[in-house]
Amino acid sequence: MNYCLVLHVLGLILRVEAVLMLPAAVIGVAQRQAGSAMLLSAGITLAVGQILVMLPVKNTKMQARDGFAAVALSWIVLSLSGALPYVFSGVLPNYADAVFETVSGFTTTGATVLTFIEGHPDAVLFWRAQTQWMGGMGVLVLALALVPKLGEGSVYLMRAESPGPIKSKLTPRVGDTAKILYSIYIGLTAAETICLRIAGMPWFDAVIHAFTSISTGGFSVKNASVAAYHSIVIEWIIIIFMFLSGINFALLFYAIRRNFQAVFQSEELRSYTLMTLAASGLIAVNLIVHAGQAASLQTFTDSVFQVVTLMTTTGYMTKDYVLWPTFSQTILVLVMFAGGCAGSTAGGIKQIRLVLLMKNLRREVQRILHPRVVKTLESDGERVEEATLSGISLFFFAYILLLLLAALVVAWDDVGFTAAFTASLTCISNVGPAFDVLGPTSNFFGLSTVSKTVLSAEMLLGRLEIMPLLLLLFPDLWKKR
Amino acid sequence: MNYCLVLHVLGLILRVEAVLMLPAAVIGVAQRQAGSAMLLSAGITLAVGQILVMLPVKNTKMQARDGFAAVALSWIVLSLSGALPYVFSGVLPNYADAVFETVSGFTTTGATVLTFIEGHPDAVLFWRAQTQWMGGMGVLVLALALVPKLGEGSVYLMRAESPGPIKSKLTPRVGDTAKILYSIYIGLTAAETICLRIAGMPWFDAVIHAFTSISTGGFSVKNASVAAYHSIVIEWIIIIFMFLSGINFALLFYAIRRNFQAVFQSEELRSYTLMTLAASGLIAVNLIVHAGQAASLQTFTDSVFQVVTLMTTTGYMTKDYVLWPTFSQTILVLVMFAGGCAGSTAGGIKQIRLVLLMKNLRREVQRILHPRVVKTLESDGERVEEATLSGISLFFFAYILLLLLAALVVAWDDVGFTAAFTASLTCISNVGPAFDVLGPTSNFFGLSTVSKTVLSAEMLLGRLEIMPLLLLLFPDLWKKR
Repeated sequence: MNYCLVLHVLGLILRVEAVLMLPAAVIGVAQRQAGSAMLLSAGITLAVGQILVMLPVKNTKMQARDGFAAVALSWIVLSLSGALPYVFSGVLPNYADAVFETVSGFTTTGATVLTFIEGHPDAVLFWRAQTQWMGGMGVLVLALALVPKLGEGSVYLMRAESPGPIKSKLTPRVGDTAKILYSIYIGLTAAETICLRIAGMPWFDAVIHAFTSISTGGFSVKNASVAAYHSIVIEWIIIIFMFLSGINFALLFYAIRRNFQAVFQSEELRSYTLMTLAASGLIAVNLIVHAGQAASLQTFTDSVFQVVTLMTTTGYMTKDYVLWPTFSQTILVLVMFAGGCAGSTAGGIKQIRLVLLMKNLRREVQRILHPRVVKTLESDGERVEEATLSGISLFFFAYILLLLLAALVVAWDDVGFTAAFTASLTCISNVGPAFDVLGPTSNFFGLSTVSKTVLSAEMLLGRLEIMPLLLLLFPDLWKKR
Repeated sequence: MNYCLVLHVLGLILRVEAVLMLPAAVIGVAQRQAGSAMLLSAGITLAVGQILVMLPVKNTKMQARDGFAAVALSWIVLSLSGALPYVFSGVLPNYADAVFETVSGFTTTGATVLTFIEGHPDAVLFWRAQTQWMGGMGVLVLALALVPKLGEGSVYLMRAESPGPIKSKLTPRVGDTAKILYSIYIGLTAAETICLRIAGMPWFDAVIHAFTSISTGGFSVKNASVAAYHSIVIEWIIIIFMFLSGINFALLFYAIRRNFQAVFQSEELRSYTLMTLAASGLIAVNLIVHAGQAASLQTFTDSVFQVVTLMTTTGYMTKDYVLWPTFSQTILVLVMFAGGCAGSTAGGIKQIRLVLLMKNLRREVQRILHPRVVKTLESDGERVEEATLSGISLFFFAYILLLLLAALVVAWDDVGFTAAFTASLTCISNVGPAFDVLGPTSNFFGLSTVSKTVLSAEMLLGRLEIMPLLLLLFPDLWKKR
């Protein structure tokens, strides 16, 4: 590993983080609550970042391994420093809790250890929501858009951080692509803020919920989450923006450019839309048939809201779905596995992987029928490399393996199999709430420190799509070059 | 598909099944209970088989697709006819229930819809245990050993029926290999019968439990399963024979031939042994620390027994593990995923697949470190083809996919997520009991017919390792050649 270069990148990222702590600091100073905690955190982060940036870099040529390591380590140091405001403000005095909350923020998971959310300073709640907004599109992508250039190596950074097995390059230059993505991201956030304000949310709440739905994060400023607003209009606004945020941003870019052919031919978007409709429909039927709910707009809205919020891995709550029949809950578990589209802010396995896995499975069976025919796989009319397909299958295996192992650790807390399994799933898929005793009206506060640490690691694994973090376990990586 | 040839094979298999119904018929006639039911079932099965065998076969050359189709269809018709004794004897008047019990038998799952097992005729209980014994080593392998020859095509039959991604050929001729495997199988069964008899079991019970532990099936003649005998000696005898039956029979053959090098270098056997020890140890610790059990031989025996019975996918019960802490239950769920070795009578994903998936994942991460190095994977010193690795990854995906989809169907019965998920898992892994309300002291009788049918399909999918049955869904297969 090229230590100097990687540390330099970490320094850059920390400086960006320090600057991004300032809005919350302003709120804190204005309200005389947690202002000094925010400023102190920003100061420490800036100082560390500055020291790292000043280290001399001998070789500026970044290789794949350096890029992956930089991304993995960036997310770790960002979380460690991003946790400072919780500790300094006294909101979460236990550092392990603060790290859990920060990782949950940056990875846009939304699992929380905070109780009585309304009672905390606005500055900290703002920072909490903002970590999700920063993490949604990728902190390194943001840095790439802000910092002039990191040389060719930036390709590796972007590759390691942005989700999905196939990367779309919108422009030849990585920095330009990052700028386009962030423009769409900011545009969506502004649009949702205005819609929510018009629908009756206070400005502060509107900004927070726009931050956390465009990033598919799910943090709220209310204990009762979106249910606190008792407004079906607000629910539908959030449904629409969550759904949009679960779509590959490259497709949103094409849609803005009026290239609708690219949008309509996308197999991933089709799969995402169909799964949303099917899951919502099945839950609505189940609620009406089994739970005796009226076939009303509210029942339909509840179904769609919970499906979209869990499938886009946002994780707001409008109804306590833990009280729903087993069938509805199982549907929700399934959509949490699937997640949104690659290249969106959503987590989960991602639709394109499922589409390609299904196609590949189909081809495998067909091989028995036609042993001599060699068939290549296509997606959206383009050939998919065998190495990509093999990587996707192994990603799926790693996903399930890590999910089960982490569930085993949580199981030591004796919370029941459903809670342990879904807590692990909700973290690796970056959703937020789990089921049973860890459902949406509860939180993760009661778990042991070991469980919280493992779940934090799982959130990072899910967000960075496993490989960059697994790489850290290989001694070969740490050899100096 | 070569219809004539496939129907001919089905006929052969049905004739073998009819003959194998005779021991139970003898018991029934001698005890004047269910004798006529057994004879009637045998008669119908023989008649249908005879008609199919007499159909003219124009082209005796079997291709891969015919072999896979013949295996998939054989298991279906075997189950449909094997269910007749339950219906005719009045033990399970509902045909769907009878098919569930028969599929559970042939696939060596051991999930049951029978209540008050002791009350049923010995003839039917004998047939029930014998279906497991027949299914354990494979019904077609049995037919290959008995019926002179099916030509070269028999390779495909054996390939489709015997579990595991890599097939070991012990001898150049398939028929000879089948005979060796069956000799070991019969030898183990006889040895266990004698051990159990010496330990105090009545002869009938000893034969039944030998049948169902060597086949890793798990049917018992007691409601309380093995717990009914209150004997730690019996428990350890069964542990040892279950463990042996979960080992690749090719390794047992080498051990008999004193080729211990092959045995000790087997990575799969090492993984199987380590997982057994680790799981048992962790459960014992959990029971002592969390459940306050004494650090006694009984606690240790309970841990080992439940791990071995669920990991070899047998599914006997000595303790109601549903009352154990979440951690112990989660360990049991994990070993149910894993299962035993390929080429054994055990179900599950199989150890060799997990070993190769882990190696392949490791290689995938290493590719980031050394992008230009092409590394081939080895197992037991031999190179593994990329196509095999890709097939294993896709098998894993199909396994999880089918598991989750079937869990969704069972969830409609509103049994809770844990019960629905583990019922699906126990069926696709061919284990037997599930968790929560479908635990080892309960059974599957209360589920809907739709759930029972889907779980029956899942047991077959698990036993035949998915692909042969998925093949039946492709219209291409059904085209006449």
